[in-house]
Amino acid sequence: MLYRKVVLAIADGLGDRPNPILGHKTPLEYASTPNLDRLAAKGITGMMDLIASGIPVGTDMGHLILFGYEPQNYPGRGPIEALGIGMDVRPGDIVFRCNFATVDEHGVVVDRRAGRIREGTDKIADAINGIIVHGVTVYFQPATEHRAVLILRGDGLSDQVSDSDPKAPNDGSPFLRIEPLDLTKEAQKTALVLNSFLLKAHSILKDHSVNAERISQGKLPANFILTRGAGKMTELEPITDKLNIKGCCIAGESTVLGVARMAGFQTVTHSSMTGNMDTNIQLKAKLATESLAENDMILVHLKAPDLQGHDNEPFQKAKAIEMFDEMIGLIEKGIPEDVYLAIAADHSTPCEIGEHTGDPVPVLISGPSIRKDRVTEFNEMDCAYGGLGHLTGNDFVRTLHGFMGRVKKQGN
Amino acid sequence: MLYRKVVLAIADGLGDRPNPILGHKTPLEYASTPNLDRLAAKGITGMMDLIASGIPVGTDMGHLILFGYEPQNYPGRGPIEALGIGMDVRPGDIVFRCNFATVDEHGVVVDRRAGRIREGTDKIADAINGIIVHGVTVYFQPATEHRAVLILRGDGLSDQVSDSDPKAPNDGSPFLRIEPLDLTKEAQKTALVLNSFLLKAHSILKDHSVNAERISQGKLPANFILTRGAGKMTELEPITDKLNIKGCCIAGESTVLGVARMAGFQTVTHSSMTGNMDTNIQLKAKLATESLAENDMILVHLKAPDLQGHDNEPFQKAKAIEMFDEMIGLIEKGIPEDVYLAIAADHSTPCEIGEHTGDPVPVLISGPSIRKDRVTEFNEMDCAYGGLGHLTGNDFVRTLHGFMGRVKKQGN
Repeated sequence: MLYRKVVLAIADGLGDRPNPILGHKTPLEYASTPNLDRLAAKGITGMMDLIASGIPVGTDMGHLILFGYEPQNYPGRGPIEALGIGMDVRPGDIVFRCNFATVDEHGVVVDRRAGRIREGTDKIADAINGIIVHGVTVYFQPATEHRAVLILRGDGLSDQVSDSDPKAPNDGSPFLRIEPLDLTKEAQKTALVLNSFLLKAHSILKDHSVNAERISQGKLPANFILTRGAGKMTELEPITDKLNIKGCCIAGESTVLGVARMAGFQTVTHSSMTGNMDTNIQLKAKLATESLAENDMILVHLKAPDLQGHDNEPFQKAKAIEMFDEMIGLIEKGIPEDVYLAIAADHSTPCEIGEHTGDPVPVLISGPSIRKDRVTEFNEMDCAYGGLGHLTGNDFVRTLHGFMGRVKKQGN
Repeated sequence: MLYRKVVLAIADGLGDRPNPILGHKTPLEYASTPNLDRLAAKGITGMMDLIASGIPVGTDMGHLILFGYEPQNYPGRGPIEALGIGMDVRPGDIVFRCNFATVDEHGVVVDRRAGRIREGTDKIADAINGIIVHGVTVYFQPATEHRAVLILRGDGLSDQVSDSDPKAPNDGSPFLRIEPLDLTKEAQKTALVLNSFLLKAHSILKDHSVNAERISQGKLPANFILTRGAGKMTELEPITDKLNIKGCCIAGESTVLGVARMAGFQTVTHSSMTGNMDTNIQLKAKLATESLAENDMILVHLKAPDLQGHDNEPFQKAKAIEMFDEMIGLIEKGIPEDVYLAIAADHSTPCEIGEHTGDPVPVLISGPSIRKDRVTEFNEMDCAYGGLGHLTGNDFVRTLHGFMGRVKKQGN
């Protein structure tokens, strides 16, 4: 079998709908994208539903699929966040996304984000990390700003428990008791352990020196942990092992990095990869092309289009797409002729909606001996006439793995 | 319901990729195919993934699907080979593909193919056919050249056993003991029975008169049986019974004939159907049209394109396709107007790869009252714009069965 390599570039939230502000073009149609259009003209294009028509997916699920997993392999957001911040996550761990929050003496959530705390969270986290409750060890680590991740590790635990986070925007709601969501003793034990931990953590945090200093500065103390999105880490074979390849992911966003680690990909990030309009596309392109020497599959991610979609900024989204196009141009120049360059998105984030939708996204593959189709522009309308037709995320990624020579033959 | 008939012509390994040697055309684009193009112009076309995007399939799996089975019905290559050489295979039989081989007195495999033995294998096989070991009957029959098939028939057997064939190219490796591949007593019994048989066969074969003569002529004796690819014959309803039709398959290759017999199709073959460029397409076309009188579905197979793909011979592959086109022209002339003529392939064998790949293959259906699409040439690019769209092998064959009036209505 002939083994080949792939660079897959992902524009987060790329897909959109015709927007009156852009003369009824989509941001991708409106943007000037000479590199994407040239690749479309010399490659094969199509439209991709990550899971199936009409189903919106999160960034985590979208990337899970783009890294090569099936949707049913999704372990929940918690395990992905934990991997994203470099925590050691093991099969069977129950993982929660958390906020540092401020509660008053009645348990009312005064602020779900503890005054958007940014500093000292590592010290606060240290004070409650490694506590053992009813034989279960609790691992706790801060993420960006007011965010954190909590892992319960022990026997007989379940992810079928409710959130302590009331999620209401500081409307006087109290934090919620964790409740089991099914009748198993595992769910009951997990709720008991987590309720005990949260109260114990509160008793430790309310008098913590970082909080004492915050209060003295008139800031809200981070004296409570709000949990949500329990997920059980599953036993998942890394995609790199399954295909016997080496992979590398270049991204700034921890969610993407988390999925990459789960998939067995090496991760490369840098503080200049901001996830916003000022992100360092030159560095991303350079790392993508350089890492080809040691790897079979490179996944390079750009967050900016998604953010502009969420903010309903069609012109800014078009600019973010032009930045993506520039990055693609740099990557194309840097890779050998026998390497495939593929373009995809993890979902649509239409400006008019401001959220992820199930609209399909355009995809393209260019590279050696490709069956070139008749499409010459890369956008949501032209790619619907592409030679790949309409396909699922799994189909698209399997097509790439097939071009790499890594899909096992069925039959003999 | 109006019952109609179908002739399905299969060009083995037809699909390919643009090839620089052919001016960046695929062999199918490069070849002169007036008959296929005329049928494309008056019929409906599409692109087919036998199983799903990117998954390569073997000739056996590809034909299993083209005869109307689901991929999960695949019984393993062994049972198909056994049926291909006309052996009586029953549900529960454990079937192995074998080589006649030469081992020395230490068990080292001197030649995996016993000097590519061609003559006398029927006599050697007779000497070890029908032996009973631990209550299990062993059926053994020669196939082409150094190949053979072995069936174990008895209670409590399993196909979860290893190969005795070391597969290494005569590098001094010994033949391997058969090992159980799981912990069941069925696998252990099967390994025990087969190990005993192989030693017993060796003791019989080493002194066999055919081998004595080979040795006197300076040839390698066929004194050992190397087994591989254990498969358990499943209880599969013939497709002909399921659809209540009569079917006929015209082919030279034993694998295709084996699948045909499993599917309940009558098989017609002839020594002039060589599987190569000198095969008798006139006879194939004549038999295909004649057998329509007695049958509802005819499957006619041409091996040559696949062989040229494996050998990376783009011009020869184009020639093989022109031969296929000529055969199609003869068939078209010979069939009544109310019979569908369909064209497909079992997989792609791109010259540049030299192996089966998961690239989709073009398909077409022409015949009475067909929804004619806008495609006028039959090849991997134009058919991507066909009216059938992208479909799986099961979808394509079910479409044919539907045109035949043989698919059961769901609901009422």
